[in-house]
Amino acid sequence: MYEFSDRVNNIKPSAIREMFKLMGDPEIIAFSGGNPAKESFEYDTIREITTDLLAGEPSNLLQYGITEGYDPLREAYIKHILEPKGLSAGLENILITTGGSQGLFISISAFLNEGDTVLIEAPTFLGTLMVFDYLNVNCVSVAMDENGIVLEDLEAKIKEHNPKMLYTIPTFQNPTGYTLSLDRRKRVAELADEHGFIVLEDDPYCDLRYKGEALPPIKTFDKSGKVVMLNSMSKIIAPGIRVGVVVAEPEIISKVTVAKQAIDTHTATLTQAICAEYLGRGLLPGHLERTTPMYRERLDTMLDGFKHFPSEVKFSKPEGGLFVWVTLPGEQDVDDIAKKAIAEKVAFVPGAPFFNDKSLAGSTLRLNFSASTPDRIAIGMERLGKVITDNLK
Amino acid sequence: MYEFSDRVNNIKPSAIREMFKLMGDPEIIAFSGGNPAKESFEYDTIREITTDLLAGEPSNLLQYGITEGYDPLREAYIKHILEPKGLSAGLENILITTGGSQGLFISISAFLNEGDTVLIEAPTFLGTLMVFDYLNVNCVSVAMDENGIVLEDLEAKIKEHNPKMLYTIPTFQNPTGYTLSLDRRKRVAELADEHGFIVLEDDPYCDLRYKGEALPPIKTFDKSGKVVMLNSMSKIIAPGIRVGVVVAEPEIISKVTVAKQAIDTHTATLTQAICAEYLGRGLLPGHLERTTPMYRERLDTMLDGFKHFPSEVKFSKPEGGLFVWVTLPGEQDVDDIAKKAIAEKVAFVPGAPFFNDKSLAGSTLRLNFSASTPDRIAIGMERLGKVITDNLK
Repeated sequence: MYEFSDRVNNIKPSAIREMFKLMGDPEIIAFSGGNPAKESFEYDTIREITTDLLAGEPSNLLQYGITEGYDPLREAYIKHILEPKGLSAGLENILITTGGSQGLFISISAFLNEGDTVLIEAPTFLGTLMVFDYLNVNCVSVAMDENGIVLEDLEAKIKEHNPKMLYTIPTFQNPTGYTLSLDRRKRVAELADEHGFIVLEDDPYCDLRYKGEALPPIKTFDKSGKVVMLNSMSKIIAPGIRVGVVVAEPEIISKVTVAKQAIDTHTATLTQAICAEYLGRGLLPGHLERTTPMYRERLDTMLDGFKHFPSEVKFSKPEGGLFVWVTLPGEQDVDDIAKKAIAEKVAFVPGAPFFNDKSLAGSTLRLNFSASTPDRIAIGMERLGKVITDNLK
Repeated sequence: MYEFSDRVNNIKPSAIREMFKLMGDPEIIAFSGGNPAKESFEYDTIREITTDLLAGEPSNLLQYGITEGYDPLREAYIKHILEPKGLSAGLENILITTGGSQGLFISISAFLNEGDTVLIEAPTFLGTLMVFDYLNVNCVSVAMDENGIVLEDLEAKIKEHNPKMLYTIPTFQNPTGYTLSLDRRKRVAELADEHGFIVLEDDPYCDLRYKGEALPPIKTFDKSGKVVMLNSMSKIIAPGIRVGVVVAEPEIISKVTVAKQAIDTHTATLTQAICAEYLGRGLLPGHLERTTPMYRERLDTMLDGFKHFPSEVKFSKPEGGLFVWVTLPGEQDVDDIAKKAIAEKVAFVPGAPFFNDKSLAGSTLRLNFSASTPDRIAIGMERLGKVITDNLK
């Protein structure tokens, strides 16, 4: 009955969000989401901070604020998150966004016209694929292995397509859990410099490391201001507060700020202030110390659960993040296996929605370990192992 | 140095937000903003509600939520805001947005392709003009008088341009303060039905009525589902919490929800829950009873202040909202007058930014009365009257 715009006709609702509806059934063990553990939230701290913030008559928290973001949060983010990673920045390098997803939308929309080419990892975050569809951008897939983007393929695709942007999730990638190695990080920054494209470095999982050594962001190797780094408070404080960050050269920040102004004026000041206090009080290191062993146990339980799977099934072995990526042998009907799994009360997301070029999807699927307790993970992996064993062609 | 997209190159930072920078000087009496009075915020109530919400371990307030919005807010909005206006709705008619401005962005982006035609009031809200620029939409101006859109001109422009949308702020319009009369509301809905265009009814000021009788929204006359109504909590609770609402047919809500999903996943749940409690506890009527006399005094003080102006100066006499619209006689350099006013420590926004077709701007300017106390308004109007008297050509 209605005539909608091409851009909304181009996009389909997220496969994951559609699966939300199934999650009402508490018997289903859901490896299908991307939520941090609710046990990770610092309820008392957030209540205490919020009560403190609202003492007195804090009109600045309730009135309109500037688009760039609440200054104390931008300052706290620089001091407590960027500087420990070896990055220096001023307020002019920082824009606060309404969650990490808005940072994606405005950064992509500020650089790419309809039909422009972006290189993407295959697979990649499906929320970003929605943005590319919305903006009708030309996506070119670059191969990945367990060390992230494959450089040979990247260089070939750069030469062939002269892209305006490379979109990468370098650390504990969604959906694979893969991490871009140090050498490759350096080379990606060099290539951007040499060929003049933007690197959109989406790094929301970097602080969720349960094993191994932290790697510096690609941004630390950025000599010519070509790297736009995105971050989010969703996985280290809470997603429901919707606070994310764009880190870039001042000229870029000005442009993405104008884009944000057209989209939602500014991010809620109260939730920005909660983050500012949380970081400013130095609470992040203690939070990560508390949550890291919890997540490590969940990850290890999931990896151990593959003992119930046929030995031909391959899976990633991430050192952090939220996800494990599974590759089944041969050509399997993964959607059908997903349905059968739900009948057995265990849920996952098939791999295809994470690919722009569905022909690359193979027989893959994504498992989330962060949102389930170890005992549920153990049971769920046993159930899933049985479904997969019974359904391999 | 960077190659940005056409859409961000098309838009300029808001003239009003640029003037924010001047507002650091407390001696300047600012009629230039669009803020509700900070004296209107219910600090104690919001603190109490937030403390109550954060008691226990409310994981639903901190975890990812659904794009459509927090159900208790959608329910409370229907019961406490829509139903008293004679509108019935179900959850499927409601999407919560990150402020009213996001409602504008996603509604416009869901219907209009690049180059499509939208009819707009001349003048209109400059934030919406930014969205039209961003989406590269073709704007056609429709004349207004003190009863809102002029129907003869509207009908002529419909025939000439076959628009896909009419954008209107029917009540206490920004920037004019004009209100669309009852007869015209009915006729606008009929015309949309007859010609098949969408009416985007942006009504954030409707509950800020200090005199006269409330008028029903255009949506109440909508027989064929062509009216998309936007609302905001910014002026009746607080802008800093960034909560707005889209009310429309379910098919439209599905599409704008997909657009929102690509843009910021969902609106912060904590701020949504604050609004849900605020409305659900029945606090809105008492709040409006308390703030109405305060705003009425500010409006009356401003209108009285025109005694300091030359008698040829015309001004609107709104019964609510935040703004008074001023028309100077002849052809004046309003930007120059604005600079001279700032030198005399009083600020306003020239009319031109509110027009898509700048040739229609004449010698106009917008005054905000909501954000200054009556004594400051009286002094400011005396200062401004003198500047204008001294500078009329």
